[in-house]
Amino acid sequence: MKLALISALALLFAVSAHAEDGYDLWLRYKPVEKPYLADYRAEATSLVAGDTSPTLDAAKDELVRGLSGMLGRTPALTPSVVKDGAIVFGTPAQSGEIAALHLPLANLGAEGYLIRSARVRGHGVTVIAANSDTGVLYGAFAFLRLMQTRQKLDALDITSTPRLKHRVLDHWDNLNRTIERGYAGFSLWDWQKLPDYLDPRYRDYARANASIGINGTVLNNVNAQKEILTPLYIAKVAALANVFRPYSIKVFLSARWSAPIELGGLKTADPLDPAVKAWWQAKVDEIYRAIPDFGGFLVKANSEGQPGPQDYHRTHADGANMLADALAPHHGIVMWRAFVYSADVREDRAKQAYDEFKPLDGQFRPNVLVQVKNGPIDFQPREPFHPLFGAMPHTPLMLELQITKEYLGLATSLVYQGPLYEEVLRADTYAKGQGSTVARVIDGSLDGQTETGMAGVANTGTDRDWCGSTFNQANWYVFGRLAWDPYLSARAIAREWTEMTFTNDESFVAPVVDMMMDSREAAVDYMTPLGVSHQMATGHHYGPGLWMNDNPRPDWNPSYYSRADKNGIGIDRSASGSDAVAQYAPPVAAEYGSLDTVPDNLLLWFHHVPWDYRMKSGRTLWEELVAHYTKGVETVAHNRAVWETLKPYVDAERFEKTDAYLRIEEKEARWWRDASIAYFQSLNGLPLPPGEAPPEHSLAYYESIEFPFVPGHF
Amino acid sequence: MKLALISALALLFAVSAHAEDGYDLWLRYKPVEKPYLADYRAEATSLVAGDTSPTLDAAKDELVRGLSGMLGRTPALTPSVVKDGAIVFGTPAQSGEIAALHLPLANLGAEGYLIRSARVRGHGVTVIAANSDTGVLYGAFAFLRLMQTRQKLDALDITSTPRLKHRVLDHWDNLNRTIERGYAGFSLWDWQKLPDYLDPRYRDYARANASIGINGTVLNNVNAQKEILTPLYIAKVAALANVFRPYSIKVFLSARWSAPIELGGLKTADPLDPAVKAWWQAKVDEIYRAIPDFGGFLVKANSEGQPGPQDYHRTHADGANMLADALAPHHGIVMWRAFVYSADVREDRAKQAYDEFKPLDGQFRPNVLVQVKNGPIDFQPREPFHPLFGAMPHTPLMLELQITKEYLGLATSLVYQGPLYEEVLRADTYAKGQGSTVARVIDGSLDGQTETGMAGVANTGTDRDWCGSTFNQANWYVFGRLAWDPYLSARAIAREWTEMTFTNDESFVAPVVDMMMDSREAAVDYMTPLGVSHQMATGHHYGPGLWMNDNPRPDWNPSYYSRADKNGIGIDRSASGSDAVAQYAPPVAAEYGSLDTVPDNLLLWFHHVPWDYRMKSGRTLWEELVAHYTKGVETVAHNRAVWETLKPYVDAERFEKTDAYLRIEEKEARWWRDASIAYFQSLNGLPLPPGEAPPEHSLAYYESIEFPFVPGHF
Repeated sequence: MKLALISALALLFAVSAHAEDGYDLWLRYKPVEKPYLADYRAEATSLVAGDTSPTLDAAKDELVRGLSGMLGRTPALTPSVVKDGAIVFGTPAQSGEIAALHLPLANLGAEGYLIRSARVRGHGVTVIAANSDTGVLYGAFAFLRLMQTRQKLDALDITSTPRLKHRVLDHWDNLNRTIERGYAGFSLWDWQKLPDYLDPRYRDYARANASIGINGTVLNNVNAQKEILTPLYIAKVAALANVFRPYSIKVFLSARWSAPIELGGLKTADPLDPAVKAWWQAKVDEIYRAIPDFGGFLVKANSEGQPGPQDYHRTHADGANMLADALAPHHGIVMWRAFVYSADVREDRAKQAYDEFKPLDGQFRPNVLVQVKNGPIDFQPREPFHPLFGAMPHTPLMLELQITKEYLGLATSLVYQGPLYEEVLRADTYAKGQGSTVARVIDGSLDGQTETGMAGVANTGTDRDWCGSTFNQANWYVFGRLAWDPYLSARAIAREWTEMTFTNDESFVAPVVDMMMDSREAAVDYMTPLGVSHQMATGHHYGPGLWMNDNPRPDWNPSYYSRADKNGIGIDRSASGSDAVAQYAPPVAAEYGSLDTVPDNLLLWFHHVPWDYRMKSGRTLWEELVAHYTKGVETVAHNRAVWETLKPYVDAERFEKTDAYLRIEEKEARWWRDASIAYFQSLNGLPLPPGEAPPEHSLAYYESIEFPFVPGHF
Repeated sequence: MKLALISALALLFAVSAHAEDGYDLWLRYKPVEKPYLADYRAEATSLVAGDTSPTLDAAKDELVRGLSGMLGRTPALTPSVVKDGAIVFGTPAQSGEIAALHLPLANLGAEGYLIRSARVRGHGVTVIAANSDTGVLYGAFAFLRLMQTRQKLDALDITSTPRLKHRVLDHWDNLNRTIERGYAGFSLWDWQKLPDYLDPRYRDYARANASIGINGTVLNNVNAQKEILTPLYIAKVAALANVFRPYSIKVFLSARWSAPIELGGLKTADPLDPAVKAWWQAKVDEIYRAIPDFGGFLVKANSEGQPGPQDYHRTHADGANMLADALAPHHGIVMWRAFVYSADVREDRAKQAYDEFKPLDGQFRPNVLVQVKNGPIDFQPREPFHPLFGAMPHTPLMLELQITKEYLGLATSLVYQGPLYEEVLRADTYAKGQGSTVARVIDGSLDGQTETGMAGVANTGTDRDWCGSTFNQANWYVFGRLAWDPYLSARAIAREWTEMTFTNDESFVAPVVDMMMDSREAAVDYMTPLGVSHQMATGHHYGPGLWMNDNPRPDWNPSYYSRADKNGIGIDRSASGSDAVAQYAPPVAAEYGSLDTVPDNLLLWFHHVPWDYRMKSGRTLWEELVAHYTKGVETVAHNRAVWETLKPYVDAERFEKTDAYLRIEEKEARWWRDASIAYFQSLNGLPLPPGEAPPEHSLAYYESIEFPFVPGHF
C-alpha cells in the first residue's frame, strides 16, 4: 500500500508538471493545509441538491471541483440531509430542503445569494440559497472563496446582492483573432471552428467570469466588422452563447452602424429612415431566434472614423433609440459609448463627450445606457473622473474601465488597477452635494436609475495564463468584484485575489498586497506624473514618445498633451484656458480650477505652469517632476527586490515569469524616466536636481528607437 | 494509508483535469500496464551518467521524466553501475562506464546512437551510447520510444544514424505573430517579451523536435521582414537559440534580399556589389557574435514579389553564393528556395523552377542547398515529384514538404501526410537508371552529396495542442522521422505515433492507423482527383473555388489549373502541349507523356482529355471523376463512423475534438464534391452517373459564399 501511495504521488508529480501555468486563475482549489483541513472536511461532507438545471449543475460541478481539490476527497451527493456538514444549495422552487427552511430571500433580488449555517433535522449544515439558479451559482463560488481565503465556516450568515445590473466584459477582438489593445495573445474565439467545435476553454472562461459575478460579454471589437451580423457568424455566436448560458453570461455584440448599407444593400444608415429601422428590426429578430437571451448591442459611433447617426445629421440619441426600439421587445439593451473623438479637432479634446452628450440627457430610451470611460481622455494612468458622471441625471450611465493595460505597460508591467478603479468610483461629483460619488451615479442610487452597469475592456487572450501575466489576472478579478459591489476596497480585493491565486501564507500575502497597491502610482510616476497624460509613443502606445509631433491630427501627438515648452508645461483647462473645469459641478470646478486647491496629481491636467513654479512641497515643479520619475523607477526596483525574497512561496514557473516581467518593467521604467527627462531638458535647458542621475542615453537615441511589431496594435 | 492513497488519487484526478489537452504530444509517458510493467521496472532501475553537459542533462531529464511517468517511480541516479537494470548513457569521452565497454561507435557519425543490452561487472544493463552528446540525447528518446511502443528491452542491439544532415522546420511566422498558412493559432515566438522572458514552451518545443531528430528551425517567414536582422531582434533570436542549444537545434533565419538597402542605407542589393557583400559579411559576423552556432539563411528570392538577385540581372547562384561566402567562415549554410514564381506569367508555371535552376547546376558554393518543393506547383494534395530531383547532380537538393495543411483542409481535416511524403520519397527519377529515387537524391547517395537535408513548413502555433488538432501532430512527427530516415514506412510511423499519442491497445491502434493511411487519398478524392490541382478558393485556399477567374494573374485562378470546358478537362503537359514532361528523365517522360501509361492519379496533370474519355476502369472520365469525389466523401464518413466506435479508448477531450473535426471534414468534403460537380456540370452539361446524388445546392450558391477571415491568410 505504501508503494501504491508513492506510485500515485509520483504520477501526481508527473501529471501536474504543467499545473502551475496560471491557467486555473484564482480558482486553483489547492489542498488546504492544517489546521484548517479537519474543520473544513467536517463542514463539507456532502452536497445536497434539489431538481437540476444547467446552472445548478454548474454550481454543483464547481462545488465538487473546489471541495475535491481543497479537501482531497470528493463530497458525497445526497438528495436530502443525512449527516452533519452537508452543504444544501438551491432555490425554494427546486429544493424541498431549501423551501422548508423559509429563508429570508425576499431582498436578494434575482442574482443575490444567502449563505448561512443552519440545522436540518438535527444536523449542522451550510445553506447556499437564492431566488434563482444564478444566485445559487454565485453563492457556490462565494462559499468556495470563503474556504480559499481560510474563513471560519461554522457560524455563517452572509447575504450579497450585486449593486449593478450589467457587469460586462468588452472584448476588442477582431474576427481574424487579432485583438486591439490585446496583450495576452489572440482572441479566445476560434471563429473558424465554430459552431461545430467548442473549445473546453470557453467553459473555463465562463466559470472564471461567473466566479466574480460578470454576467455579460461583448464578443467583438467596438471598431466593429459587419460580418459578425451575417448568418454565418450569428450561428457561431449562438454556439458560444450556449456554452455561456449555464453560467448566466449573456452575449452582446458590437454593431457596425453602416451594416444596413454594407450588408443590407440600403442606400443609407439614417436612423430615422424606415427601411433602416426595418433592417435592424429584422436583424435583431434573426439574432434572437438564434440566441433567445441575447443581451443587445454595444455601439461606437461617430468616433475615430466609425460611421454613426451624425453622418445623417442625427444625434447619438436618435441612433441609440432606433436600435433600442428594435431590441426592446426582446428585453435587449443598447450600450452607447460616449467616447466620441470626431474628425474635426477641438480646442480641447477632453471636452467633447460632455459637449455632445450632456444636451441629450433625458432623450434616450429606457433600455439605453450611455457608456462613459472613467476619465475624459482615454484610460490614462491617471485622469480626473469624467465630467459626464453626475451631469446626466436622467440617463443611465455605465462606467467603462480598461482592464487591458494599453497605457500601463502592456502585458509585462505589474500594475494592479484596483486603486485606479477605486479612485474613480470614490470620486465625488458633487452633482447632488457632497457624497455624490461616481459609484452612486453608476449604481443608480443617486438618480434612481434601474438600468445600471460597468464594462471592462477585457485583457484575456489565448495565452495560457489568460491575461499575459499572473498579476494581470488580478485586474480581471478586481473589475468583476467592483462591478458586483463598487464600494469594496481595492486592498481587500487584492488580498483576496492573492490568497486564492498563490497562497494564504501571510509572509507572502502582506508584501504582495503592498506591492500591488503601490504599483499603479509607480506607473503614474515613471510615465506621466503630476497630471501629465498621453506621452506614450503614437499608435501602439508602447514606451515614451513625448517628442512625437508628426501626426497630422494634433490631438494624436504627445506634444498636444504636455504643452511643454521653454517656459513651462501643462494644459490650462481653467477658466483662463479651455475652461474644461466648467463641465464639473461648482465645488469640483472650483477645486480643480484653482492653483491653490488643485491636487498635485492633477496639476498639469488642469494648469499650465512655469518650470520654476513652487509646489506645496517647496520644490520647483521641475524638481518635483524629476523626483516623481525617479520615485516610479525606485518603486519598481523595490517591488522586484521584494518579489525575489518571495521565491520560497511560489512555484517555479510563476515565480520566474513574474521575476522576468519585473526586470522588464524596471528597464522600461528607467527608459520612461530617462527619455522624459532628456526631452524636457531639451526644452527647458534646466540642470538635473542634485543627486539625480542623468539619462542613460541622448534624446536622439530615444527618438531613434522604433518598435514596429508591438502587440495589440491591429 | 489507504485514505492517503485515495486522497492522492483524488488530487491526481483533480490536477490532471487539463492533462489530456494534447500539449504533451507523443511524449505522454503514461503509466505502463501489465504485463509490461514488471519487466520494464526491472530494466530501468537506475540511471548511470558520467560528466554532465547541457545536452546530457537534457537526456537525463527526459529519461527521468519518461521513466517516472511510465513506471510510476523515479529512477535512482548513480555515478556507476551498482545494480541490475541500470541504464548507462553517455559518450566514451565523458563516461568511464561507456569508455570501458569499447563499443563499436565508429560508424555512427556525429549524431547516431547505439542502444545495446550489456553486462557491467555482473549486472545486466542497457547502454545508450554515442560519439556526441547529441547522439546520446537521440538515443535517450529512442529508448523511451521503445518502451512507449512496448518493445522487448532485454536483448537490445540497435544502431541508428540520420541519413540527412539538415532536418529543419520552416516557420512562416511573421513578427507580429501571425502565421502565413498557420492553422494552430499564432506564432510560438513571443517577440515582445524576448529576450527577457523565456516561455517554458520554448523548451517543450525543443524537446518535441529533438525527440524526432529535427535539428534546425527557421524562425521567420520566407516572405521575410527586414527587422529580424536588426540588433533588437538578433538579441531575441539569440535568447531562443540559447534555449534550443541543449537540444541540438540550430536556429536559422529567413533573410530579406533587400535588407542592405532597407537597413543598411545602400543604393543596391546587387550581390556582386562590394558594399552589398560587405554589408552582409558584417551582418553575418554580428549574428555569429550573438549566436556562435547560428545555422544560416533561408532565402525566397524573385518569387511572388520578393526581391532577389534577378532584380540586378544576376542569377540565383550569384545571390546564394554571395551569402554563402559570408557564412562559410562560420560554417553556416544557405538554403535557397527553388520555388520561383515570377511576375511574368509563363505558358506553364510548372516548368519555371526547372528552367531557372537546371542551368545553374554546378555553380553553387558547397554550403548552398537548393530547396525544392515535393512537386512543381505548390503542395497540392497530389503532384508528381518535382523534375529538379535528379536533374541537378552537382548541387545538394533539399526536399521541402509542407506539414501545415494549406491545401489539405487547414486545421480540422484528418489528413495524415505520411503517404504523401512517402510517395515523393519513393518516386523514381530514373536520373541514373531505375532506383534513382527522390530519397536517394536528397540523402546524397545518388550523386555523392554531403550536404543533405529536408525542410518541413511547420504546423505549430499557440494552440494548446501545438498543431491545431491531435492528428495534425502526426504530420510533425512523420516529417521528423522521415527526415531522419527517408526509407521508413509511413504506415509504421503512423503506428508508432498512434501508440505513443493514444494507447497501445491494438483494438484502437489498428483502425486508427487504417484511417490515417486512407485519409490523404480521401482528401485527394474529394478535392482534386485524377491529377487536377489548385481548385481551392483563391487567397486563403479554404474550400472550393473552381469557378474563380477574376485574378489579374491567370495562374492564380483555379480555372488556369483545371482547363475545364465544354469538351474536356486537364492540362496538356505532353509533347503536344507545354512539354513539361520533357523536364523528367526519359523513362519518366515517356510514362507520364503517354495516355497509355500515365497513372490515373496524374492523368489530368499531364493531359487534356474529353469528358467521355474511356478510363482503364471502363468508365468515362466524367463517371470516374464523380466516383472519386463521392468516394472521398464516403471515406471521411467511414472514418468518422470508425472514430465513434473508439470512444472507449480515448480521453473525453481529445475524443470530442477529433469527433467534431471529423464532422467538419465530412461537411467540407460534401461541399467540395457538390461544388465541383455543380461547376463541371455547368460546363459539360452531362447528367450525373446513375446512383450519384445531385449537389445539395446550386452552383450560384457555392459561388456566393465567402469566408473573409480564414486563418493563416496574413
